[in-house]
Amino acid sequence: MSIISLITDFGTRDEYVGLLKAVILSIDPAAVTVDVSHAVDPQDVAQAAFLVQSAYAYFPPGSIHLVVVDPGVGSARDILLLDLGEHRFVAPDNGVLSLVMDGGLPFRLRRLENPAWRRAAVSPTFHGRDVMAPAAARLSGGADPAEFGPELEPRAAVRLQGLRPRLTPAGLEGRIVQVDRFGNLITNIDRGRFDAFTGAGVAEIRVGDTRIRGVRRTYSDGVSGEPLALFGSRGTLEIAIACGSARLTLGVDKGAPVAVGCL
Amino acid sequence: MSIISLITDFGTRDEYVGLLKAVILSIDPAAVTVDVSHAVDPQDVAQAAFLVQSAYAYFPPGSIHLVVVDPGVGSARDILLLDLGEHRFVAPDNGVLSLVMDGGLPFRLRRLENPAWRRAAVSPTFHGRDVMAPAAARLSGGADPAEFGPELEPRAAVRLQGLRPRLTPAGLEGRIVQVDRFGNLITNIDRGRFDAFTGAGVAEIRVGDTRIRGVRRTYSDGVSGEPLALFGSRGTLEIAIACGSARLTLGVDKGAPVAVGCL
Amino acid sequence: MSIISLITDFGTRDEYVGLLKAVILSIDPAAVTVDVSHAVDPQDVAQAAFLVQSAYAYFPPGSIHLVVVDPGVGSARDILLLDLGEHRFVAPDNGVLSLVMDGGLPFRLRRLENPAWRRAAVSPTFHGRDVMAPAAARLSGGADPAEFGPELEPRAAVRLQGLRPRLTPAGLEGRIVQVDRFGNLITNIDRGRFDAFTGAGVAEIRVGDTRIRGVRRTYSDGVSGEPLALFGSRGTLEIAIACGSARLTLGVDKGAPVAVGCL
Repeated sequence: MSIISLITDFGTRDEYVGLLKAVILSIDPAAVTVDVSHAVDPQDVAQAAFLVQSAYAYFPPGSIHLVVVDPGVGSARDILLLDLGEHRFVAPDNGVLSLVMDGGLPFRLRRLENPAWRRAAVSPTFHGRDVMAPAAARLSGGADPAEFGPELEPRAAVRLQGLRPRLTPAGLEGRIVQVDRFGNLITNIDRGRFDAFTGAGVAEIRVGDTRIRGVRRTYSDGVSGEPLALFGSRGTLEIAIACGSARLTLGVDKGAPVAVGCL
Repeated sequence: MSIISLITDFGTRDEYVGLLKAVILSIDPAAVTVDVSHAVDPQDVAQAAFLVQSAYAYFPPGSIHLVVVDPGVGSARDILLLDLGEHRFVAPDNGVLSLVMDGGLPFRLRRLENPAWRRAAVSPTFHGRDVMAPAAARLSGGADPAEFGPELEPRAAVRLQGLRPRLTPAGLEGRIVQVDRFGNLITNIDRGRFDAFTGAGVAEIRVGDTRIRGVRRTYSDGVSGEPLALFGSRGTLEIAIACGSARLTLGVDKGAPVAVGCL
Repeated sequence: MSIISLITDFGTRDEYVGLLKAVILSIDPAAVTVDVSHAVDPQDVAQAAFLVQSAYAYFPPGSIHLVVVDPGVGSARDILLLDLGEHRFVAPDNGVLSLVMDGGLPFRLRRLENPAWRRAAVSPTFHGRDVMAPAAARLSGGADPAEFGPELEPRAAVRLQGLRPRLTPAGLEGRIVQVDRFGNLITNIDRGRFDAFTGAGVAEIRVGDTRIRGVRRTYSDGVSGEPLALFGSRGTLEIAIACGSARLTLGVDKGAPVAVGCL
C-alpha cells in the first residue's frame, strides 16, 4: 500500500481531481490518495513550490507526492520523478520542486520517457490525468523507478528564482507566500535566517504600513485585534491577528514584501 | 473491494457528503469512495448528466456511480440501478442518467423496491443518505443486484431533452454546459458531430459577440489573452483564453449558446 | 481498521486537513478518514457542537471523531477523550462536545497527558496536527485508551450554555444554528420539544418578519417560492423554500431567533 499526496490548482468544483483518483485506482487499487490542496492559485508554480516543501515530510516514508500545477501542459516540458530520502515526487519540470531540491538533501532525478506509463490516449490539455497520475500509480504499485525514464543531472531541472528571503540595506526581506483561511499572512522567512539576522536583538517586522515589535509564541499571546508576529505551523514567520483576519485588517495579500529589521 | 464514485449538488460545507460516506462504510467497510464533484449547481440535473457521462469511464471496472441530484426528494419518483458494461449507476429517475443511457451501449435497468436495502428510518428530505447510499453500499458489498428490485424496460426511464447539439440554418448549435475553475467554457459539441459538420472546411465558432477561427490543439497554442477553441479533456469543444478566464473576458456563462459555422 | 471522522474550521484551501491525514496515516496506516466538514466558521465552537452531535451516530461502531475547532490553541486548555457507547471523540475541552455529553447516554472522559502520544515537536499554533491527530491515530491503531491520560469527572468538562431552545412567554424559542448550501435554515428545535409544546394544536413558526403556519413533510409539499417549515435530515425544525433559498428570500442567517407559537 502506498500513499499518493495530491497538490493541484484544479479546485474541487470540477471533476478533474476525481479523475486523477479514478486513473490512480485503475492502475493501483491499493493506493491511498490524500488531498493536500487543490486551491493553488491557477498556474501559480511558486505557491505550489512552498506548499509541497512544507507538507511532504509529514507523510510516511514511501509516500509519493503528485504535484500538478502545469501552465505548460501540452508543450514540450518534461515530467520529472524526484527521489529524495524515502519520498518521491512526480511533477512537471517547471520549478515546482525547486524548494524540495534545494533543501540540502541528496536526490536523484529521472525524466518520463516510457510510453507504456501513460494512458493510451493522451489529451493535450490534461496531462495530470493522462500522464502524471498513471506514472505515480505505477510507482505506488511497485514498478521499478528505472522504467520511468533516464536519469537527469540534478542541475538540469528548472529552478525558480527569488523564492528565498534576501539581505538588503533595509534588513532581511521576504514576502507573503500564502494567506490561509483565517487571514494569517505566511511568509518565506524561516527561523534559521531570522535568528541569524536578529541575533540577540529585538526584531521589528514591517508589512504594509504596519510595524510589529518582537515575536510571540502563539495566537493567544497577542492582544485581541492587534497584529502579532510568530513562527507558524510551517516554521516560517507569520503575521496574524488573534480572533481576526490580518489580511483584512492590514490590507495586504499574497506577494506583499515583509521586512525584518532590528530595534 | 469496490469503488463508489460520488456526484452530488450538496457542496462540501455541510455534513451531507460525510454522512453518505458514513452510511456506506457502515454497510460495506471495504468500500472506497471517490468524490467526482459536489458542486453541481443546486438541482441542476442536466449539469450532473454531463458530469457523470464524461467521468465514469475513467473508473475501474466494477465501480458504482452514485449520483444524488434530486429535486424530487420525498416525492414518488423511483430510484434506479443502471447496469452498463462493467459499471453500475444508482440515481433518481429524473433524467440524470440520460446521456449514459443514450451513449449507444446496451444496459439494464432496475427500480428500487427492496425495503431491506434502505435505512430503517428514512428522512423525507435526505434519500441520498437513507435510500441511495445504502443501496450503493449493498451492491459494493457484493449483494445480488436482483434484490434491488424488478427490471424496467430501458425506455421506461425519464430522459432529458435538448442535451445534444442540433443542426440549424445557422450551423451546428450547442451550448456551454460547464464552466471550470480556470474559466474555460466547456460545450456539449463532441468531435464526431463537429467533424461531420465542418468536413474539410475551416470552422468559425461563435459565442456571445466573439468569433473564433479554427481549432487549436492545446492552450499554449493560442496567443496570450486571445480566445481560442480546442477539444478539451472531456472530448468536447471548449473555449479558453491562455493565462486568462474566457468566462470573465467574453462575459458568457453556463447555458449560453455556441454555434459552429464554416468559413 | 478504524474510521476517523474529521470536523474542523480549517477550510480546504490550505494544507491543514491534508497534514492531519498525513500524521494519522503515519501512525495508523490502516485508518480511514472521512471529512464531515471543514467549513465550520472560524472558531465557532457552538456550530461545531451541533455538527458533531448530528453526524456521529451515522458512523459505524468503533469510529473515532476528531473535532478540531480550537480558539485556545497553544494555551492551557485540555485535550479530551470522550467514550460514549461505541463511539470515541477527541477534541479540545472548550465545550465542543457539550451536546454529545448532554444527550442522555453514559460516557467516560479522559484528559490527554501522555507525552508519547504527541509528535516530538509540537507547534504552539497547530495542536490538531501535533497533538490531537496523533492521539486519534493511536486509538484507531488499537492502543489502550487508559494510556491517553487520567479519567476526569464527567462534570469537569466545559459546557456551552444556551444551545437548547427554551420556553418563554412568546413560545418555544430556538435559533438558526446552520444554513446549508441550499439556503435552508436549520434550527436547534428538535421534534420532541416541538411536539411537547404544540400538542394537538397548529404551530405558527416565526423567523424574521415571516410567519409560517404548520409543518410539512418534505420540500416538494410546499408551494414553489413560499417558505415552509419541516423537520429536516438532522431531525430538527428547518425553514426552507422549495426551489429557492430561504436565507436569501427571508433575509435571515445563522444566529437568528426562531419562535414556535400555537394558533
